[in-house]
Amino acid sequence: MSDYVVAVDVGGTSMKGGVVTRSGEVAATDRRPTGREGGPDAVVATIRSFVGDLADRGSSIFGTGPAAVGIAVPGLVDDATATALYAANLGWRDVPATDFVPLDVPALLGHDVRTGGLGESVLGAGRELSDFLFLPIGTGIAGAMIITGEPYAGTSGWSGEIGHIPVFPDGETCACGQTGCLETYASASAVGRRYSARADRPATAKEVAALTAAGDPVATAVWDEAVEALSLALATYTLLLDPSAIVLGGGLAEAGPLLSAPLAERLAKRLSFRSAPPLRRAVLGVDAGMLGASLLGWRAAGVRDAGASWTLDVPTTPMVS
Amino acid sequence: MSDYVVAVDVGGTSMKGGVVTRSGEVAATDRRPTGREGGPDAVVATIRSFVGDLADRGSSIFGTGPAAVGIAVPGLVDDATATALYAANLGWRDVPATDFVPLDVPALLGHDVRTGGLGESVLGAGRELSDFLFLPIGTGIAGAMIITGEPYAGTSGWSGEIGHIPVFPDGETCACGQTGCLETYASASAVGRRYSARADRPATAKEVAALTAAGDPVATAVWDEAVEALSLALATYTLLLDPSAIVLGGGLAEAGPLLSAPLAERLAKRLSFRSAPPLRRAVLGVDAGMLGASLLGWRAAGVRDAGASWTLDVPTTPMVS
Repeated sequence: MSDYVVAVDVGGTSMKGGVVTRSGEVAATDRRPTGREGGPDAVVATIRSFVGDLADRGSSIFGTGPAAVGIAVPGLVDDATATALYAANLGWRDVPATDFVPLDVPALLGHDVRTGGLGESVLGAGRELSDFLFLPIGTGIAGAMIITGEPYAGTSGWSGEIGHIPVFPDGETCACGQTGCLETYASASAVGRRYSARADRPATAKEVAALTAAGDPVATAVWDEAVEALSLALATYTLLLDPSAIVLGGGLAEAGPLLSAPLAERLAKRLSFRSAPPLRRAVLGVDAGMLGASLLGWRAAGVRDAGASWTLDVPTTPMVS
Repeated sequence: MSDYVVAVDVGGTSMKGGVVTRSGEVAATDRRPTGREGGPDAVVATIRSFVGDLADRGSSIFGTGPAAVGIAVPGLVDDATATALYAANLGWRDVPATDFVPLDVPALLGHDVRTGGLGESVLGAGRELSDFLFLPIGTGIAGAMIITGEPYAGTSGWSGEIGHIPVFPDGETCACGQTGCLETYASASAVGRRYSARADRPATAKEVAALTAAGDPVATAVWDEAVEALSLALATYTLLLDPSAIVLGGGLAEAGPLLSAPLAERLAKRLSFRSAPPLRRAVLGVDAGMLGASLLGWRAAGVRDAGASWTLDVPTTPMVS
C-alpha cells in the first residue's frame, strides 16, 4: 500500500488540501478557491482537479499514487452511499464521492463539521474522550456530536444543527426563517452584525471581543447576549446528551477566557441537579477538517485505527475546568 | 437454561413484576408497594423479596428457578457496574444489582425510562427504527434516546433529561430550581396544577384534556402552553439528533390527537430547512418498563437478541404521519 493519502476540506469559498502519511506527517498542503460563482458542476470539477494535483504532489514526493482519498464537504452527506446530497452554498445535489476523485483509489466523503469533529476526537482536544460536543463557532454554528467514539450523523445526516435550536422562542428572526435561533445571537457573524447595528459602524467579532475586553458598553452587551444564548444551548445539550466535555472551536473561541469563563459560569448556573461538563478549546484550529479528511482517507484505505499513534503537538488542557 | 426470567420495574411508590418466557409469554405478573416511607434499606429489602416471590411463582409454573433477573429502577444507574447510584424519590445510594436479587443467577439493572425505551425499541412502537426518542409524559418528563439501536445513557447515566431543558428561559420556576423547564409546563402533573391554579379548583391532566376538548377557555390555554413547550423541546431534539420518529407515551399521550395533532403542526412550523419526524404513540403503555426489564433479564442470561421474534400485539401506525 502507498504510504500517503490525499485529504481535502471543502469550504464555501475555498478549500484546503493535504498529503498525509500513514504516521501523520503532513508532507504537503495547498489551498484553492472553490469557484462557486461558476456553479455546482464547475465546483465539482475544481475539487476533482485539486485532488488530482495533490495526488501529483504526493507522487513526486513518494514515487507512487495515493492509497486513498478523504474529502470533507459542507451540507448534507449520506455516509452510507458516500454521496454529497446537497449544499446550500455550493448548489450541488447528489454528487457521488467518485465524481470528486480522478483516480481509481478508494475514497470516503464526510460532512465538514463532523469530519472536523473526527479530527478533534482522534487527534485533538477529544483524544481520550468517547462522548463530547465539538462546537466550532464561525460564520454559522453547527456541532459534531461524538457519541461512543464516532461522530453521529443522525437518521438522515441532519444531526448537530445546534445553531438553529430556539434559545429565545420569541427572539430575533434568523436567516433560516425561524425565531430565536442560537446562531442569530452567537455566531461570529452575528456578534459582528449585532454590534454594528447598535454602534452604527462595521466591526468583526474579533473587534467586538477587543472592545468588550476594554469595557465598551455596547460591545459588552452584545457579547453578553451571545454568551447567554450559548449557555442556554449548552445547558440543553448537556441535559440531553450528558457529554464528558464541550470542545469550543472556530473564530469566536479565539477570544479564549473572555468567552469561556462567563460561559462556564452561566452554564453551571443553568444546571441544577447535575454538574456542567468542562469546556475545552479545540486544538486543531482551521486544520481540523483537513486532518479529519486524512483520517477518512486512511479508513478508505482500510486503516481503521489511523491517527491513534500520531503525535501531533496538541495540548489537551481545559480552557476552564 | 431455564425457560423464564424475572422482570421488575421499580417506580417511586409501587413496582410491577413479571415472569417472562424466552418466547415472550408473560406467565405471571404482580404489583407491590415500594414502601419508601420505610427508608432506602427497607425499599431494597422489599425489592429483593419481590424478586424472590416472583422466582417462586416461576418455579411453581416451570419447575426450576429463573435463568436471570432484569430490574428497571429510577434515578441514576451505572450500566457498566450494574449499580443503582442514586434515586431522589427512594433515597438509596450505590446499591449493586446483586443486593436486589436473593438468588445466585445473573442480573442486569437498567434506568427506568431507558428500559421502557428498550421495550418500545425491541417490542413496541420503535420496532423497525434504530434512532428515535421515547418520551413518556407523566408526573415528570424524561426521555430515552435510542441511538443506533440502543438506549443511550450518556457519559455518566444522565442523558435524556429533556424535562429540564429551558424552553422558556425567562419562564416559570421549576421544582428543580431552574426557570422555564419543559416539565414545569408540559408534564401531566403540570397541566393539572396549572389549570387548578387558574380555575381555582383541583383537576387532573385527564380532566383538563376533556375540558379542552369541550372548548373550556382556561383549559384550552393551559393545554396550548403545554403543546407550545413540547413543540420547542421536540424541535430542539430534532435539530440536534435527527431522529426518525418521536414516540409519545405516558398519561398525557392518552389524549391522542388532542395532543398529537397540534403538536405535529407546531413542530413542523418550528423547523425551517428540514422536515419534522413523525409522532407515534407508544404501544406498551404502563408495561414498557417491565417488558424492557425482561429483555435485560434475557440479556443477562446471554440471550442478546431476546424479543426480536416475540409477537406481542403491538400496532405501529403513527398517531400523526
